[in-house]
Amino acid sequence: MDFNLSLDEINRLIDENAWGKLRQYLAEANEVDIATVLEELDNDKLILVFRILPKDISADVFSYMDPDQQEQIVQSISNTEIRSLLDNMMLDDTVDFLEEMPANVVTKVLQNTNESTRKLINQFLNYPDNSAGSIMTIEFVQFRSGWTIQQAMNYLRANATDSEMISICYVVNAKRQLIGMVELRDLILADDNALIDSITDDPPLVVHTLDDQEYVATQAQKYDLIAVPVTDKEGRLVGIITIDDIVDVVQEENTEDFEKMAAMQPSDEEYLKTGVFSMAKHRILWLLILMISATFTGRIIRHYNDLLQDCIILASFYPMLMDTGGNCGAQASTLIIRGMALNEIQWKDIFRVQWKEFRVGMIVGIILAIVNFIRVILLERASVPVAAVVSVSLLCTVILAKFIGCTLPMLAKKVKLDPALMASPIITTMVDACSLALYFFFASRFLDIVA
Amino acid sequence: MDFNLSLDEINRLIDENAWGKLRQYLAEANEVDIATVLEELDNDKLILVFRILPKDISADVFSYMDPDQQEQIVQSISNTEIRSLLDNMMLDDTVDFLEEMPANVVTKVLQNTNESTRKLINQFLNYPDNSAGSIMTIEFVQFRSGWTIQQAMNYLRANATDSEMISICYVVNAKRQLIGMVELRDLILADDNALIDSITDDPPLVVHTLDDQEYVATQAQKYDLIAVPVTDKEGRLVGIITIDDIVDVVQEENTEDFEKMAAMQPSDEEYLKTGVFSMAKHRILWLLILMISATFTGRIIRHYNDLLQDCIILASFYPMLMDTGGNCGAQASTLIIRGMALNEIQWKDIFRVQWKEFRVGMIVGIILAIVNFIRVILLERASVPVAAVVSVSLLCTVILAKFIGCTLPMLAKKVKLDPALMASPIITTMVDACSLALYFFFASRFLDIVA
Repeated sequence: MDFNLSLDEINRLIDENAWGKLRQYLAEANEVDIATVLEELDNDKLILVFRILPKDISADVFSYMDPDQQEQIVQSISNTEIRSLLDNMMLDDTVDFLEEMPANVVTKVLQNTNESTRKLINQFLNYPDNSAGSIMTIEFVQFRSGWTIQQAMNYLRANATDSEMISICYVVNAKRQLIGMVELRDLILADDNALIDSITDDPPLVVHTLDDQEYVATQAQKYDLIAVPVTDKEGRLVGIITIDDIVDVVQEENTEDFEKMAAMQPSDEEYLKTGVFSMAKHRILWLLILMISATFTGRIIRHYNDLLQDCIILASFYPMLMDTGGNCGAQASTLIIRGMALNEIQWKDIFRVQWKEFRVGMIVGIILAIVNFIRVILLERASVPVAAVVSVSLLCTVILAKFIGCTLPMLAKKVKLDPALMASPIITTMVDACSLALYFFFASRFLDIVA
Repeated sequence: MDFNLSLDEINRLIDENAWGKLRQYLAEANEVDIATVLEELDNDKLILVFRILPKDISADVFSYMDPDQQEQIVQSISNTEIRSLLDNMMLDDTVDFLEEMPANVVTKVLQNTNESTRKLINQFLNYPDNSAGSIMTIEFVQFRSGWTIQQAMNYLRANATDSEMISICYVVNAKRQLIGMVELRDLILADDNALIDSITDDPPLVVHTLDDQEYVATQAQKYDLIAVPVTDKEGRLVGIITIDDIVDVVQEENTEDFEKMAAMQPSDEEYLKTGVFSMAKHRILWLLILMISATFTGRIIRHYNDLLQDCIILASFYPMLMDTGGNCGAQASTLIIRGMALNEIQWKDIFRVQWKEFRVGMIVGIILAIVNFIRVILLERASVPVAAVVSVSLLCTVILAKFIGCTLPMLAKKVKLDPALMASPIITTMVDACSLALYFFFASRFLDIVA
């Protein structure tokens, strides 16, 4: 555990052709660290090092590698080596890897699997993206209802090494339909001659292959589960989703929310691995929509050109009004979007939320308005009526921004849109228009007197 | 698993005084669901229902309850009941619950524990917030180095029910220092007479009680771990952190990032349970800072009052320029902040990131500028020089926004600030000032000719 894998040491051992030592050196390290270090090697060395890895760890290392490097390796190794690699990989890792490969690599790999595995892989590749089926693993332990504890333990001993998770096992009937789950904890405590059914519990959650992965993740978190069984439409147990994949889904869904909330179409790819054109494509749509929407705000300003001509100082407060409104709206919408994502806020809470935001808006708005009034008088040397118009507009803007910011995400969810779309960018654009309209309304009412 | 707990049914059974039936009805349900449904009951009924719950599930239900209701219950039940409740709760849940309680409740609870538990609880309550110590559990299985497999299995059978996790157990020496870990999988496969040390592995990660929980979560995700051992400064094993708590940390850290990125000071509390003043307090600081910063942009506008007076139409393009700049900056900063949070982007990548953002900015900026040019000519009926000034400013704004948006979060991390602070609100304020400065620069250069 105090062992740090060093790229320099690996390079030194390669240059000295000290293959035995290198093999020993790598065998001590963690598979994730090996995969990370291999990313730094050039291709020739990568293949060399990969080939000398002990068989039992090379499949794990391969699973943690970058798609680019996985492709390099598969292109370079022999069919026999591919077969041995696939034999040692978990099926869900194989599927994840194949999903990232170009067609010719997929063909090469599938040619090196036996028919039943090929059929399974194809079935997995056909599950829709983001479905429970696409993230499940088939390496789980299932007992037959009616077995004794002794039979179950023997079966478990024979199958433990091929299973991703054994702390929760499942019980099925003769038709392979899910009957319940067994905790390994209960299994080792039970009497050898008892029936497995006597320690079988109902799983808190069973999902279907086509259920959305976000639903699975939310429910699994709610019940603190470390595995969720997946059934097909006949109720047969076809796989389980383990907690490490649930954490990945949680992070993926969070990333999607971050991206949507910053007006981007979400992408699965890592930043540094995404091409410039693909990145531009994910960003341009919302920028165009928002740019064109912002022109309505421009129209409002043009409508008041005469007023502005008479009192040109008004224009210098636009940025402060617009930015503060945008920030207030972003604060409210972020809290609501996040609260809904974590199931802390439901539609039925809408009036409580609005009432809370109204009061927060009053407190915050009054403080900002007072500070602004003093600043405008003292530092900008504006007249009292101008300072008053700016400050009252600011207060109204803050309250309005909080109201729009909390209401829109909730409405979006109500009409089955993703609340994350109703975040800072859209809220800002709407608040801008409202806040300038209010500003000019007050200005035209109260500054007529002084103009 | 097809069982849905119904509040109406519970109320009906209470009204009929059908306590036996109610107890049976609840015993079938999941603890999380019971806790959720109990939230809807008024206090008298809550206590009644809680009291009739079977002992083995009431402690779990209690752990999943709201702090408000936990307090109600503790205030209403007898000391004997408190002792029985504490006996059945996991220590980490007890600590989580006590952290939320007022002092008088904490005293009442601690009076009902024995001295050794009280000492332990106090020690937990003293770990700093967000440290590994504050989220660890002490209910784990540890074997002594030198034991046989048989001895270990016997020990495990005797202690399995009191442990939160048994799929990974730990091996310690006579000084209770951590030697390594044992997978239950290997334990059940091993020969009874072999030494436990023969199947002991190095844990991929060992953390210290004072390590930051975010570090633990990031590393646990990296290595796909379901438990992380925690040692004190003498290297003694004092607890483990289990994956369900790691998921909670991941979600907590994500929420913090969402809040910081929307210019709020992060808060641990749920939205609906946070008071209005506390909420206002978390929001006002950044709003004030950003409002005052926005006045610099106002200064730039005032500086060009004469130019604006001559060409008042210029003012109507502020919102479009400012919003688009803000959105472009938000897109870049969000991707970079998220990429750094997921360890996909490091400081050494800064030039690659800037070069990528420059190219994306060029593509996106040119498209936006062209669309904008056509729109300004056709719909706003502005002159070609004005349309050209607006569009060129837009292009420069987009490129600049992408540059600032990707650079600031990376610089923040370099100087050990939280990159999430360099998100949309600050970026928008900076981009606003730059974009208006550019706009007036171009306007004063090129519109002189036509003014």
